[in-house]
Amino acid sequence: MADREARATWHGDLFKGSGTVSATSSGLFTEAPVTWASRTERADGHTSPEELMAAAQAACFCMAFSNELSSRGNEPARLDVEATCTFEGGKVTTMVLQVSADVPGADDPAITEALSAAEQSCPVTNALRNNVDIVVTRKT
Amino acid sequence: MADREARATWHGDLFKGSGTVSATSSGLFTEAPVTWASRTERADGHTSPEELMAAAQAACFCMAFSNELSSRGNEPARLDVEATCTFEGGKVTTMVLQVSADVPGADDPAITEALSAAEQSCPVTNALRNNVDIVVTRKT
Repeated sequence: MADREARATWHGDLFKGSGTVSATSSGLFTEAPVTWASRTERADGHTSPEELMAAAQAACFCMAFSNELSSRGNEPARLDVEATCTFEGGKVTTMVLQVSADVPGADDPAITEALSAAEQSCPVTNALRNNVDIVVTRKT
Repeated sequence: MADREARATWHGDLFKGSGTVSATSSGLFTEAPVTWASRTERADGHTSPEELMAAAQAACFCMAFSNELSSRGNEPARLDVEATCTFEGGKVTTMVLQVSADVPGADDPAITEALSAAEQSCPVTNALRNNVDIVVTRKT
């Protein structure tokens, strides 16, 4: 079991106020600014909940896909996952994953099978299932 | 509508391999290292999907809570949210939020009512609902 922690602070109302977010377990970022405008309009160099969810999803999907390939005897040389998370109408609506894989010795059906299995086993995908539309596509 | 992007890369199998994760919309972090060991054992200065989800949740909950307070006429001076995300048995099992609020002029029941409303309206909470146990507590 592993616990990981982060914290956020906010001053003022939603639209004119502003806040910060910190990754406290790792210290990767400290008091990164967040605002409603930079979440919903131009990012303007600021992170947002959707960007952080996309990062969580991309990292987790890499691990799940690596494991599904390796457990079938196909250790990947390199996997790339680009995640796009959409916020619309006050909801996190969609997570689109574009995946590419360099897997020496594996044929296309073997990669596709492992990709489908990862879509089912990925912990972050499962945390979002039925609430967020998840679309996994393979870049070739 | 706002799209936010991140990407991750992985080399090798799950247990001996390693990867990186980047927040590409903001550039907040680039090629931050991730491993299975630092996700599930000691963080060792590395981020993980659960830490990034905790950060997304903390920032989003601040915004939702600010909005629920302000829409009831109680603009917050300061809100703090500490989020702890637990990974256990290959699942994201729990998100615990400890919330504190400095809201000039608001009495306790008003703050508690807005907190309950935020638990229902927060977009990240809703993205995880029914898949991850979400526990919101007020620090006083």
